[in-house]
This record gives sequence, structure tokens and C-alpha cells, in this order.
Amino acid sequence: MASNTLIRAAVLGASGYTGADLIRLAARHPSIKIAALIAKGHAGQPLAQVFPHLVSLDVPKLVTADEVDWSGIDVAFCGLPHGTAHAEIKKLPERVKVVDMSADFRLRDLGTYAEWYGGEHSAPELHESAVYGLTEHYRDAIAKARIVACPGCYPTAVLLALLPLMKSGLISSEDIIIDAKSGVSGAGRTLKQNILFSEAGEGLSPYGIGSHRHVPEIEQELGAVAEMPVRVNFTPHLVPMTRGELCTSYVRLAGKAAAADLRKALADAYATSPFVRVVEEGVIPATQHVRGSNYCHIGVFADRLPGRAIVVSAIDNLVKGSAGQALQNFNLMYGLDETTALEQLPLFP
Amino acid sequence: MASNTLIRAAVLGASGYTGADLIRLAARHPSIKIAALIAKGHAGQPLAQVFPHLVSLDVPKLVTADEVDWSGIDVAFCGLPHGTAHAEIKKLPERVKVVDMSADFRLRDLGTYAEWYGGEHSAPELHESAVYGLTEHYRDAIAKARIVACPGCYPTAVLLALLPLMKSGLISSEDIIIDAKSGVSGAGRTLKQNILFSEAGEGLSPYGIGSHRHVPEIEQELGAVAEMPVRVNFTPHLVPMTRGELCTSYVRLAGKAAAADLRKALADAYATSPFVRVVEEGVIPATQHVRGSNYCHIGVFADRLPGRAIVVSAIDNLVKGSAGQALQNFNLMYGLDETTALEQLPLFP
Amino acid sequence: MASNTLIRAAVLGASGYTGADLIRLAARHPSIKIAALIAKGHAGQPLAQVFPHLVSLDVPKLVTADEVDWSGIDVAFCGLPHGTAHAEIKKLPERVKVVDMSADFRLRDLGTYAEWYGGEHSAPELHESAVYGLTEHYRDAIAKARIVACPGCYPTAVLLALLPLMKSGLISSEDIIIDAKSGVSGAGRTLKQNILFSEAGEGLSPYGIGSHRHVPEIEQELGAVAEMPVRVNFTPHLVPMTRGELCTSYVRLAGKAAAADLRKALADAYATSPFVRVVEEGVIPATQHVRGSNYCHIGVFADRLPGRAIVVSAIDNLVKGSAGQALQNFNLMYGLDETTALEQLPLFP
Amino acid sequence: MASNTLIRAAVLGASGYTGADLIRLAARHPSIKIAALIAKGHAGQPLAQVFPHLVSLDVPKLVTADEVDWSGIDVAFCGLPHGTAHAEIKKLPERVKVVDMSADFRLRDLGTYAEWYGGEHSAPELHESAVYGLTEHYRDAIAKARIVACPGCYPTAVLLALLPLMKSGLISSEDIIIDAKSGVSGAGRTLKQNILFSEAGEGLSPYGIGSHRHVPEIEQELGAVAEMPVRVNFTPHLVPMTRGELCTSYVRLAGKAAAADLRKALADAYATSPFVRVVEEGVIPATQHVRGSNYCHIGVFADRLPGRAIVVSAIDNLVKGSAGQALQNFNLMYGLDETTALEQLPLFP
Repeated sequence: MASNTLIRAAVLGASGYTGADLIRLAARHPSIKIAALIAKGHAGQPLAQVFPHLVSLDVPKLVTADEVDWSGIDVAFCGLPHGTAHAEIKKLPERVKVVDMSADFRLRDLGTYAEWYGGEHSAPELHESAVYGLTEHYRDAIAKARIVACPGCYPTAVLLALLPLMKSGLISSEDIIIDAKSGVSGAGRTLKQNILFSEAGEGLSPYGIGSHRHVPEIEQELGAVAEMPVRVNFTPHLVPMTRGELCTSYVRLAGKAAAADLRKALADAYATSPFVRVVEEGVIPATQHVRGSNYCHIGVFADRLPGRAIVVSAIDNLVKGSAGQALQNFNLMYGLDETTALEQLPLFP
Repeated sequence: MASNTLIRAAVLGASGYTGADLIRLAARHPSIKIAALIAKGHAGQPLAQVFPHLVSLDVPKLVTADEVDWSGIDVAFCGLPHGTAHAEIKKLPERVKVVDMSADFRLRDLGTYAEWYGGEHSAPELHESAVYGLTEHYRDAIAKARIVACPGCYPTAVLLALLPLMKSGLISSEDIIIDAKSGVSGAGRTLKQNILFSEAGEGLSPYGIGSHRHVPEIEQELGAVAEMPVRVNFTPHLVPMTRGELCTSYVRLAGKAAAADLRKALADAYATSPFVRVVEEGVIPATQHVRGSNYCHIGVFADRLPGRAIVVSAIDNLVKGSAGQALQNFNLMYGLDETTALEQLPLFP
Repeated sequence: MASNTLIRAAVLGASGYTGADLIRLAARHPSIKIAALIAKGHAGQPLAQVFPHLVSLDVPKLVTADEVDWSGIDVAFCGLPHGTAHAEIKKLPERVKVVDMSADFRLRDLGTYAEWYGGEHSAPELHESAVYGLTEHYRDAIAKARIVACPGCYPTAVLLALLPLMKSGLISSEDIIIDAKSGVSGAGRTLKQNILFSEAGEGLSPYGIGSHRHVPEIEQELGAVAEMPVRVNFTPHLVPMTRGELCTSYVRLAGKAAAADLRKALADAYATSPFVRVVEEGVIPATQHVRGSNYCHIGVFADRLPGRAIVVSAIDNLVKGSAGQALQNFNLMYGLDETTALEQLPLFP
Repeated sequence: MASNTLIRAAVLGASGYTGADLIRLAARHPSIKIAALIAKGHAGQPLAQVFPHLVSLDVPKLVTADEVDWSGIDVAFCGLPHGTAHAEIKKLPERVKVVDMSADFRLRDLGTYAEWYGGEHSAPELHESAVYGLTEHYRDAIAKARIVACPGCYPTAVLLALLPLMKSGLISSEDIIIDAKSGVSGAGRTLKQNILFSEAGEGLSPYGIGSHRHVPEIEQELGAVAEMPVRVNFTPHLVPMTRGELCTSYVRLAGKAAAADLRKALADAYATSPFVRVVEEGVIPATQHVRGSNYCHIGVFADRLPGRAIVVSAIDNLVKGSAGQALQNFNLMYGLDETTALEQLPLFP
């Protein structure tokens, strides 16, 4: 693609992990020119000062949003913290498309947003037009959207596994128990004691039991296909690894459905989705097998408890769970092949 | 205690992790003299050759069981693999007490044993007299037993959390879902590809879904207090840490019980148990907080799903989950204070 | 590139880590068709059975070398163990080019080879024509070679750092002390106790002190540019991480050279080398910053000891230290851009 | 020991890692009563709030130093940050003995202190009377001291290895190169980006090259026995593990000394020291083998470079490198057996 036809992208929140991973991937996208990197607290610094692993890139210095000439920007990837993204996105010219990796445009009900994220939404009008960016389930809407709200990492892993099952009526909307496990990078780069190496290493604990902000997002989407309110148990755990997320979902089978039916329904649902893979019977999904890639692996297992099954899904929380899915959505928004710049295979060992 | 009144102990399986941890603890026990270390494959070697961290100990060389003068042995700690322990224990003189850390004497039903462990039991008569060594629940029987079958690591964490709740009728025997997570040392020292550092590190996956051998043990004990057969979902996961085990049990509340009732029942049950601690409301158990110690931390949490609760229990799989509990049982068997040689505080960070 | 003009590659040793990483990279190479995957012990299995992270690839099943129709192969990447590669490579048709990642063709002196690798070399005639594949230093010879012997991971990190300094006479050939640290993947996938997660995790130790097989390779290349025999201290350490290698080289300055002169010499030497980067003054190389990529970062630091300096180099041992450099050499051998299929940025965090 | 004869201890800096490890060990000391826990920023909180792993202890709440009734305190263990300890220690009544784990009383020359620690020392008169607490080398002085300045973690590992060699004239005072590696806990509990799990994990880098504050301490002690100024290269590296420190010291042999002479000199020097162990020939020290214990393992190896040798020493940085050595010194100061409360064996795996 000739340089003058490149799509000019800005990254808001370029000093966070999702920002960095977006830059890592976008820098190798044949249709993207990284035109602005925004990180308020680091304005004036070269990117390599906050992310030395990106030192080989020829990209602009970090700036504040005010310093950007937005007339030269086509699309903004937003990796700002929840609750701050909406105000920044509101300021962008209407012609700039937005791929938001924050939570600010994910919840369709603004009351629910205010309840879980602790504040009024400053851009309700934009909010209404935003499309939920779970790529495999909203491709058409994403292709036409101005603002795409990429799902949280946990909802991505959970919904890819459960949405087709709920939609096809194979599982009950009751009694869904999701035991989720995430690597530490999911907590971001902000300094907190519990994510110090010496605290999180060689250890394991649940957190945010019953109160994790990804709950309403999961319930919203499951409820939409169940066509009734759905309530789930969602219990995340912090695991001593950097990348990776694995959700073990314990579900009640509807009617006479068996694990094999669930596996088939998932395989059918994702037959033409290059990044979602239902693993063969007997294979167990593992975060190692998707690390650094945009893949999601899903396995279905019979339960010892009659009438129940276990669905296991694994992703890289920063790729399919954030920056990778963002780029996948960008590809759809611009009519490009969904896999562009996302072909890297998992990094194992 | 004068040297001539010391209890003379042999360790079978001294080259495995549970054997090593037993030696580590027993070597500092004021009433124990380590009189024989048995490790068939390493006979003739000093212990420090297989476990350099124990180089400072003045203990006998590794030998085969045949080389031991059993007339000089009072008690045998057995850390042999499942399925091989019963044959070795059978050979011991009847006056030798046995603290078995294998699975061979845990299941009261020999049919169940054969089904799950793949073979006939060679010592059914001994089997009958063995006591299940979940210390806090079988103190009296343990004190009088010749053979104590210490529980598996997972059953220890699960049963300490659920037995008092089942016994007091606060939870249903139906629909118990146990999502378990273990550090890699639980897999032992045998060479297997999936526990290589480069395979298990920076990754996470379930294993043995629906087929883990700790299931019948859990069901046996829960069933005993429920006075009816109990079936559970038990799904273990391999976590990139060496020590530590955390079980997240999702239970259905009976009648009008609430999370607070469960917490109180547990606190009452363990009021005089020095090693089991029900954490305060708001505190979340973490394996880091029990690492290297004989403690078990238990927390109870309300569930978003009405009529359910979450019980989280954390132990060090090699201590309370194996060698520590073995020594605790030994203390009871010899009328010693339960905490003797087990007072070490958790190693954190 | 049309499919019929693709270069058809075989991979020998497809079940090892270097084989897997080669496949990971080569599968995305626009000019390569993976035509045969050879892994004797796994013949008949799909690749995904030994490497589930590569399940998305459409590649042939694993076979033995004998099963391959070599007339359809243009190039062989060899990831076989040291000492076994030469015999396999000897059997290949002469028209098949070879990129060898083993040690079998690295040492120009066959006596030295026999001494360090414990055996006669079975293909001395091929050996003579092989080119040492330290890409940045042997580009012209590599471009014309039939057999390229890619350097070991440690020699790559060390030589990229020291060769230009030795060549320019800035450092003494005496008293070179190389303290090297490697992630555990460097030990391969063979089952060994010391690389179990529970053994290598949360710990650190040197190994192979004075006897590591990468010594003669380092001395050969340093000696070649020094034009005299060079002897080095090389002390590797096993570090609890999977990927990454960092060499801290303590060197004696020649004449009045200072750290700044060394930095400049390195910057000049690699001015046109896309993958070798001399970091800015004040920046410290870290394996995190090159993880998963083909980059080598080099830093130079003044020493408190007068007349000495410290040179630090970091690579990913499986990429620039093995499969990545192999592919880089392949690119040169086929007249392709050196960076083809190696553009992935480091994976951080 | 009757409760009224217990030695009443205060811990300054009870919310840091060294403070916590001191409490962990002291709580099991038969002659110590923990009478006050001081942590300014956490005053009013129970200890378990900052260190949940110590929840089982029955100790006083955290307070400020001003809140302590010092008339009831016999000894103060100080785990305050460097540069703040001297001012706090100055305020203590003269009858209170002090075991300081900070750097504030380690350097005999106050000019050197000011240069490396960036400030005037507020208590020069106390400073003069302080004894350097490298236990094995200063037993007599420690036994009589009021203030003992425990060495830094790195100096402990380095000096235990090199002091006897320098003293016996077996190594040259020139050209000592110390490549040091530490687990992340050495950086303390203060929030810093580079010690986040996602930053330090799966990676390795040197830090503080040529400028680490442990340099003058090492040079002071080596210089004292060499009876001349000694300058060393000391290059520390941050390793992805929590506990553990390993120093690889590259030394020049004096006269005709060989590695075996060094090993013998060390063995002689520590023949009656229970915690320092010269490992047998062929055994390689590893931090895993001393983890959680007060042991130091030292190995000596011949170098490929003629006239040089390699000395490797391993400790747990928080135990022998800090809290353990502090308690060992306390034992000497009170005429107790040096090993009291320090008998725990290493925690492996």
C-alpha cells in the first residue's frame, strides 16, 4: 500500500500495556501509519523510554491529546483507563473512528455503567452508537460502526465459549459458574502492592469475588441471546504468570444436551472464524498454546455431575483479550482481511 | 528428651518431594531420630546427593527397605507412589506404626480403590484397620491407630473447608463444584514433559478433568457426613508456582443459610485447631500466606447467584497437604502436642 | 510469490524447541513452503500432538527422514541434537541446502570437535565447506554456502558483543570473563531433573563451569580476529525464565580505549544491521526487551576497575540464538531481504 | 525460659520485608518477646493487615516509635530504609541494644557514607561504636557491642566467600570481578515499576552497574584484611525469583595457589561455623538449596584462565542476607547459642 493511502492512527494511552501491545501489532500492519502516540504523563518522551522493547520503531514521540493535529488522524485506538476514556473520546472529531479498549462504551445500559464504574457517563449520545466489539459475534455491526467498544479480556474468553451455547439453547441460563484465572498483566502497569513480583510470584488467590467489573458485561451479552436477564457467578483469580487467561465455565445442560452437542455447536459457530478454535476431544486448552497470539482455544468436557458440562476457554489477555481484538475490529471497520497483522503464531515455549 | 527415648523413624520414599519435606520437618522434631532413609533407586547414596538442600543433616545413607534393621524402627513414614505403598507397608513388622502419605489406605471401599488406582490392594486386612488421617476430623481414631492414611493434598484443602458445612447441614450435597488449583510440586519429581519449567512456566491449564484420583476420597468423606452418596465436580488446574494449593468450592446453601452462617460454623469447628484458620470477613485466602507452613486458611464469600456461596481454602500442598499433616498425625499417635515441629510460620515473600 | 516458486523446506528435529520455533517463524515466511517435518520418535503424529500451539498450521505430519522424498526438498533446517546432526546431514542429496542449528559444523578444527563433543565427525568433507552462520559477521560467505552452521545461543550473544571490539583492537585478548545467564528453554525439551519446574523455579545456579561446549566456539571466533589463540572464562547460569539470554562480559581495555570508544565501535559495526542494536548510554539491556524477537541489544559500561569495561548483550536464545538466526541466514542464502519473516517485535510484557 | 526473663524486642520497620522476616523468625525464638512493632505509615493496624501470613501471631499492633514505652524494651531490630535508620536509632535510650539491618552503621568512614548514601550521618558518635555484623568474622566484637550493623545481603554473600581467601593471601586484591544475582525481594516492598511481576518476570537484566551501594562495604572489609585499599568490580543482576542471591566471584590467584587451596582455606575458616558450608568438590551452590534458611553455601572452581579461580556463594537474601544474620548476631549479643531460632532447614522444592 502506498504511503499516502495508509490509515493514520493515533493511540491514546500509549504508556499502558494494552497501548503497548496495540503499537507492537499495529506497527507491523501494512495499512496503518502510527501518526500519534498519546500518553499525558510521559509527553515529550520517546516511546522507547517507557517501552524499551519498542526501541526499533520509528514512531513519533509521546504527546498529550491536545498536541495532536487531529485533522491528520483517521482512527484512534484508545487504551485509557476505564472511566477516563469517554471524556477523551468525546473530544475527538466526528470523522475519527474509534476502537476503544476501555470499558466505557461496553455496557448498553448507562445505569449499569454508573453503578459498576462509579460515575456518570459524559458521552451518552456517542455511547448509543457504539458497537460491542466481540468480533466473531458482531462482525456486521462492527464493519459499519464509528465507535467499537472492545470487550474486556474476561468477557472475551467467557462469551466466545458460552454465547453460541446459550444462543442454541444447549445450556441453561441458570447456575452458570465461571472460575476465571488471569496472568498479572491484566492488572495493568499502575503501581500496586499486590502485583509486585515478590507478592504475586509463587502464589495464587481469588480477587474481586462477586464484584469484578466484567460481570455486567458478561451478563449483558448472555442475557441478550437468552432473551431474559442472566446472572452468573464470576470469580477471577490472579495467577503467577504475565500473559494468559483461562476461564473454566461450569454450566447446566438444557434438555438432553450432552458435552458432544456443545462441542459441535461451538465448532459450527466458529467454522469460518480464523482465530477461534474448538480443540479436539481429549485436548485441553492451555494459555501457553495461545500466548502472544490472537487465538482463542475452547474445549468442552463432560462433568461427573449429571446434567452439567465444563467449558474451558483460553486466550492471551493482551492480544485476543485486548489489542489483538482491537486490531481485528479495525480490519473489519476498514474492509480489510480480519487476520491482517494478526498472523503471528503463539510463542511457545 | 534423652536420645535413648527418641522415637526411631524410617522414611520410605526418601527421594521424592513428600519424603524430602517429611525429612525436613522430622529432622527438627525433638522426639524423632531419623534412623533409616529408604529410596530403592538411590540406595547407597548420601541424602545430600538427591536433596542438596538437606546437606547439613546428619542422617543415614539411602538404603533399600531390605537393608533396614526393622527391629530398631518404631514408626515408618511412607512417601511411596500410589499403588506401590501397600505392598511395602505389608512387609513391615506389626509393631511398626505407619504414617502413610500415599493413597493406598485412604479409600475405605476396596472396589473403589481398584477402580481408581487400577489394581487390587495387596493388604486388605491392614486396610481395614487404617484410619483416614484428616487430623482435625479424626483425632481420636488417629491417636489409637497403627496405620494412618494421610489424605491427598486436594482432599485436605477441600474437606477442611466443606466437611463442617456438610455436617452441620448448611450446604446441599448436590451440585458441589470444586475448582482446584495446584502448584507444580504436586506432580512429584518424576520426569514428565508437562512439568518441565519451559512447559509449565508462564501458563495455566486444567488437567484430569472428571478423572482425578482425589475425587473418590472427597466423595467418600463428604458422603460419610451427609449420610448419603455425594458426587462432586472436581476440576484441578496446574499453576506456574512450585508450592501451594487453592480450592474454590461453589456450594448450594441449604435452607436459609447464608455465607455468614457458613463462616461461623467453620470458625466453631476449628476453634481449638491450631492450624486451620477461618480468615476474617473481607480477607481473601492466598497460597502465599500459608507457603511452607502447616496452616490452612479458609474464607467464605457470598455468591451473586442467590442460594449459593463460595468457600475458598488454601494450603501448602507439601506441608498441610502431605508431610506436615503426616507429622501432625504422628504427634497425635504418640501423645505429643499436635504442633510439635510444625510451628514454622509461612515463608513470605 | 506464486506457490510453485516457493522454496520447499524440511525441518529435521521438528519435535524439539528449536525445531518448533523454526516452524513458527518459517510458517509465516512468504517464500517458504514447509514440505516435510522430521521427528523420528514421533513419526506418524500430527505436529499439533507434540506442539499444540501450532495446531492452526496446515503442515504435513511428522515423519522419519527416510520417509521424505528429498527430490522435492530445496532446503533443510536441522534442529537435531549435537553429535547426531552430522550423520543425518551427510545423507542428504547435495542439492539440498542446509541450515544447521546444531553444533556439528561450527568448529573448524575437527580435533577440537572430537574433544568437546565426544566423538568423531562422520562428515569431514562437508564440514570443510560449512560456513559459520553468525549472520552479521559472515554475510557474504553465508550467501554462497551450501551448509551454514548457525552459532550456539551463547556464542551469538557473546560474539556479537565482542568480535567488533577484538577486531578493532580495543580490548585485550587476555582475561576475558564472560558471566552468562540463560533461560531454561536453552536446555531443550529432553527430560532432565534439573529443568523441572519445581527444581529450576525460584532458584539460580551456575552450571558447566569451565566445561560448557560453547567455549571452543567463542574462542575460535575471537581467536580468528585476534589472530592468536584466545582463552576465555565462560560461566553459564540457569535462570528461572523460559526464554532469554544475557551475557555480561568483563573485558580489559587495550591501550587508552574507554567505554565510549567501545560503544562507538559497536555502533559502527552494526550501523546497517537491522537486528543488532547498541543501546543508548544509560540504557541497560534486558532479555525482556528482546523476548520472542530476533534482536540483540548490546550495552557498554565503564568499570570501577581502571582499564576494564563491561559489555552486556541480550538475546532471545531460541530466536536470535537459534531459529531466528537460522532463518536470517536462509534469507541471505536465497537472496531475500535479511529481515523477511523476522519482523515481529519483542513480546513485552 | 520464664516469661518474665524474656528479652523484650522492638522491631522498627515492621512493614518491610526484612522486618517481616525478622518477626517470622523472632516469634519462634524461645528467649524473645516481641514487645513493639513500629511502622509509621501503618500505625494502628494489626500486623496481619500488612502481612497476612503472620496472622497466627499474637503480637502488638503496629505503632509509631513515639508511642512505644522504651523503658520496657531491651533490644531493637531495625529494618528501616537506609538513610533514615540513623536518626531513629539516635533517639533510642542508651540501654537499648540495637541490631540494625539498614546500611547506616556499616561504613566505618563517614565520608564514604555521605558519598554513597547521599547525606550526613546524624549520629557519628554512635557510629563509632557500632560493630560490623558479619557474624562469622566478628563474633567477639558483636558479643560486646551495643549497636551491630548487619551487612547488606550482597556483602554477606561476597565477604563470606572472599574474606578468608584474602586474609590467607591466596588471592590477589587486584582484578576482583563479582557478578552478583539477586531475587526481586532484595528491592524491598516499595512500589517501583521495574519490580512489578509483569516487568521483572521472565526476564533478566543488570542494574546499578558500577554504582551499587554495596560496593564500599565490600571494599571496606576486603581492604581491612588486605591491609591496603581494594577496588572491586561489582555488577548485580535482577533475577525473576523472589528470594535468593548468588555471587560469582572471579579472582586472581596469588602465587601458586590453586582452587583446591582456596577450598581448603574456606573449609578451615568455617569449620566451626554452623551456617557456612563449603560444598564438596563437584557440587554447585544453588539458591534453591539455601532458600528460607540461614545457610550460606560456597563452592570453588578452577578457571580455564590460568592463574584465576571462581568462587560461588549462595544465600537467602532475606535470611542470612538480613533478618537471619540479625538474629544470629542477637544470639551472640545475649550469650545464646548462635543457632537459636535459626535451625529451619531450607525450603525445597
